[in-house]
Amino acid sequence: MPDIRAFVFDAYGTLFDVHSVVAACREVTSDPEALSREWRAKQLEYTWLRALMGRYEDFWEVTGSALRFALKRLKIAASEEQVNRFMAAYLSLQAFPEVSETLKTLHPRFPLAILSNGSPRMLQAAVQSSGLHPYLQHVLSVDTPKTYKPNPAVYDLAPKALGLAKETIAFVSSNSFDVIGAKAFGFQVVWCNRAKAPLDEMGITPDFTVARLDEIPKALGL
Amino acid sequence: MPDIRAFVFDAYGTLFDVHSVVAACREVTSDPEALSREWRAKQLEYTWLRALMGRYEDFWEVTGSALRFALKRLKIAASEEQVNRFMAAYLSLQAFPEVSETLKTLHPRFPLAILSNGSPRMLQAAVQSSGLHPYLQHVLSVDTPKTYKPNPAVYDLAPKALGLAKETIAFVSSNSFDVIGAKAFGFQVVWCNRAKAPLDEMGITPDFTVARLDEIPKALGL
Repeated sequence: MPDIRAFVFDAYGTLFDVHSVVAACREVTSDPEALSREWRAKQLEYTWLRALMGRYEDFWEVTGSALRFALKRLKIAASEEQVNRFMAAYLSLQAFPEVSETLKTLHPRFPLAILSNGSPRMLQAAVQSSGLHPYLQHVLSVDTPKTYKPNPAVYDLAPKALGLAKETIAFVSSNSFDVIGAKAFGFQVVWCNRAKAPLDEMGITPDFTVARLDEIPKALGL
Repeated sequence: MPDIRAFVFDAYGTLFDVHSVVAACREVTSDPEALSREWRAKQLEYTWLRALMGRYEDFWEVTGSALRFALKRLKIAASEEQVNRFMAAYLSLQAFPEVSETLKTLHPRFPLAILSNGSPRMLQAAVQSSGLHPYLQHVLSVDTPKTYKPNPAVYDLAPKALGLAKETIAFVSSNSFDVIGAKAFGFQVVWCNRAKAPLDEMGITPDFTVARLDEIPKALGL
């Protein structure tokens, strides 16, 4: 990784484990993975559609709409109170096991930031509940440009906030579409492929691939 | 439907039955529906991502990439020759049973057009193989603005080509996201909900919903 001056991380699935969201779904369905999969797919789909239509609503709204659609599509009955509880899981997420140690190792040497689709309130809650706040210089949200990844206007928040050229920023994400969007924008990109999934076929590939975030400081000899 | 001056139809899933594409997949998997579902989901996802990144490739390219990803994700082996054959199914699609009669009834009274994500070559092939060419005044492709639905720049092709105000155009689609995009743009919108699926939760609803296209001339007393 030549001449890296800062690390910028995606949030959901990259730093924060959304498994607790799946667990919360268990009370209304015997197949919480199916509900969680449908919910997540629609959550992303709605961000892309809203960005393309120029009709931004924040990620809390989008996440709620996606959940309501997923319940309807899978014909799962849930009370408003249950819906609120599933949503609340997003406000008390835990980080993946290696994340805290990784950021702790990196942060004396590099400015660290989050760049996420999440709304500021959702991100602040997750950063607090996961205990990552001491290591982060910036928590950047799409709520500033009011569009969604992979719109280049989102990625452009990071070089602006950090005062660095985009080529000197390493962007880290577990989400294939985000990896591709960030690379298309011009970051150096690390794909944290936790799920050992195939990369999307868009003719754009990350600079580095790891299975866990602690491989990053190791690769840097830290 | 007040003051309609023209009908504009989405192509895939609305006029053209893509079931033959599913049938073609049967030779490599015992679950062709799963392959077809993954293929279609990725096909749409790649259009949204490419539109958002400003990295247009035409629908033939996107469809091929989506198929290759779907095969990889589902761990299905297919030769290049088989991939080509599945793709070729898009060039000889049939219309749904009621489509030809519906367009025949409407076309003496209204200008009719297609507005589709398809590339011009794909659309010409499907229009010819389905025998719909005598009824269509325009076959409009996203390949002109080089972006994808639901970008308003796509929908704007229709009022321009027809020389009509968008409020006087009825846009007909089976695809929920397309219905929402078209309504957000300002058309009158008919959702042809063949699958009896729930509508996506984006706070935007169609003006009319039908289960088959021949309900449209019936509603107009034709």
